[in-house]
Amino acid sequence: MMLDLLDTPAAVIDIPRMEKNIALMQQRMNTLGVNFRPHVKTTKCVEVVRAQIAAGAKGITVSTLKEAEAFFAAGVVDILYAVGIDPSKLSRAMMLRKKGCDLKLVVDNPAAAAAVGEFVRRHGVRFEVWIEVDTDGHRSGITPGEDTLLEVGRILQDAKIEVGGVLTHAGSSYELNTHEALQALAEQERAGCVQAARRLRDIGIACEGVSVGSTPTALAARSLEGVTEVRAGVYVLFDLVMRNVGVCAFDDIALSVLATVIGHQPEKGWAILDAGWMAMSRDRGTSKQSHDFGYGQPCMLDGTPLHDYILSGANQEHGILSPAESEYGDASTSQDIRARFPIGTKLRILPNHACATGAQFPEYHALQATGELTVWQRFYGW
Amino acid sequence: MMLDLLDTPAAVIDIPRMEKNIALMQQRMNTLGVNFRPHVKTTKCVEVVRAQIAAGAKGITVSTLKEAEAFFAAGVVDILYAVGIDPSKLSRAMMLRKKGCDLKLVVDNPAAAAAVGEFVRRHGVRFEVWIEVDTDGHRSGITPGEDTLLEVGRILQDAKIEVGGVLTHAGSSYELNTHEALQALAEQERAGCVQAARRLRDIGIACEGVSVGSTPTALAARSLEGVTEVRAGVYVLFDLVMRNVGVCAFDDIALSVLATVIGHQPEKGWAILDAGWMAMSRDRGTSKQSHDFGYGQPCMLDGTPLHDYILSGANQEHGILSPAESEYGDASTSQDIRARFPIGTKLRILPNHACATGAQFPEYHALQATGELTVWQRFYGW
Repeated sequence: MMLDLLDTPAAVIDIPRMEKNIALMQQRMNTLGVNFRPHVKTTKCVEVVRAQIAAGAKGITVSTLKEAEAFFAAGVVDILYAVGIDPSKLSRAMMLRKKGCDLKLVVDNPAAAAAVGEFVRRHGVRFEVWIEVDTDGHRSGITPGEDTLLEVGRILQDAKIEVGGVLTHAGSSYELNTHEALQALAEQERAGCVQAARRLRDIGIACEGVSVGSTPTALAARSLEGVTEVRAGVYVLFDLVMRNVGVCAFDDIALSVLATVIGHQPEKGWAILDAGWMAMSRDRGTSKQSHDFGYGQPCMLDGTPLHDYILSGANQEHGILSPAESEYGDASTSQDIRARFPIGTKLRILPNHACATGAQFPEYHALQATGELTVWQRFYGW
Repeated sequence: MMLDLLDTPAAVIDIPRMEKNIALMQQRMNTLGVNFRPHVKTTKCVEVVRAQIAAGAKGITVSTLKEAEAFFAAGVVDILYAVGIDPSKLSRAMMLRKKGCDLKLVVDNPAAAAAVGEFVRRHGVRFEVWIEVDTDGHRSGITPGEDTLLEVGRILQDAKIEVGGVLTHAGSSYELNTHEALQALAEQERAGCVQAARRLRDIGIACEGVSVGSTPTALAARSLEGVTEVRAGVYVLFDLVMRNVGVCAFDDIALSVLATVIGHQPEKGWAILDAGWMAMSRDRGTSKQSHDFGYGQPCMLDGTPLHDYILSGANQEHGILSPAESEYGDASTSQDIRARFPIGTKLRILPNHACATGAQFPEYHALQATGELTVWQRFYGW
């Protein structure tokens, strides 16, 4: 099967790009002297995760128990479930522990810690729990200097639950776009997480793990002193949001959506594609960044970006390809769109957000340098 | 199984609301004297479509060949594939025709019409083709007065392909929010589509079908003279976008995402839910409407809206519930968010866009008035 014979829309992974992304991140982590624990929520795909582990990753990060179950079934044992545990999910987590999965849970508040403690007492199960730290105010976690941090540590300690470590995620890195700002945030992420670990250790809690990470900060950090592991997800495929953040180039982006031209609006200079938001996702992550790519960046079948066009609009199964506003001018509009992109033309669209776009597809089509294609299943749901 | 025992996040369909939405639309179409052909892209769920057909729907509309295949396998024969045909999908369409599916294809340009003609000549298959008409400039289709309309008609006629009708979709109705504007657009949609059919008939093309529709125009039209059928999709569940358009109320919305409180940021007045954008979708359709609901409208477990809160932010598996800006004040912020929504609290979030939110889930949990729950599978992909 060749790329131009695939049914469209299709999610295509460029294997050489993916392998390069994996290798560069792992080398960076090796150089910085920390373990690397990739976040598999980006792809939910066993073949991708095997490539990450083969390159040197130690354990994985998941965002759902379904991911934990699927990757444990595929042979991964060391799994960090990096979303604060909902007490009603503890039975399902216990099932994994009982089967031998080294599942680590996360809490960021006394009530959840107490609920885990109560569950452990009642069921006699052993859980390892990590405490989530907030180092940039963007979402969850306890700020490193707060009393609540020690309170949560003591609740776990009193319940004889192993506190495996602290973790943080500087997700606000997605809003930055200079190397200096990213370096500063990476240092803030590191320092805050190390501080939290030290405070817990000072009251006699072992707290060996110090886990930080987001793709931008992982790629910007100059020092990771005191950190034991880094987590990152989207680096494996990259996307237009990461390009705008400044941590990848167009030709590092390993995910694209293959689409076909099915119509035109010649007066408007539009070509209509069979990839709408159901294929691209509704993610408009570039809309507030330095360069807005609409629903994606069109490329030729060989991957060459068509910089004077963007996917400017999307309905469920229709995408609107139109001249990019930033380059709007003679080059784009002087030519009849029907001649430029005839009916049946296949294009590849780089996505705003690889995690969101991938989730729209039951499978990836993995493309080797030879042009050979392999189907890689991915899963969804909870 | 009771609602509060479901694993979260879960997509819940309120059956009495859905049944009411189905009945009211069907009654309206009966009164207006037209057939109703629901668009099944909203739910991709056999149980929902069976309820629509039981109420009187004649045939269905689909947005992908996978939908056509799935619903034909479930016993639906009369299927309109309402996206301009990509010539490379004709083999797959032929398979359905050969199995007895009354599949209708759509074209809106001479090249696609010629490709269907060529395919028919080569394979000796019989296709019924409808011509897409553009009545509001928002996407695809040929404007009713254009010469291209007759050119496409003649290409099909010359290839001895039955032209089953013309269809249009006034998707710009989603941008309106007054009954008068919707009535005017519904009339524009009707008149344009009828005009296109008349022009084709004038050159000897039968063109019996005149198919119009979007949920807002279907609910606003005063006359459908000359129209044979109406299509609509999202009306079956409704959502916050439709509430802002003005065609439903909060308590007509039949889809909600069940979520659990897993954390807080007390200083910010936030509760963190286990429903992020992976559950709600990235659809921010209300962001440019009269009322922006963020990623959704939280409700109590019994469905009562909590109007002083919205889901203001979302990461992949984290949703941020915060005081609604429009009502920001004493009521929302004076109370400790931890006391208002303790860890483990279950909430139901009304979505911006039912089509996008449903697509994130492998199944719906259908809730009867008695509180009984049934799993309804849905599918995705192409």
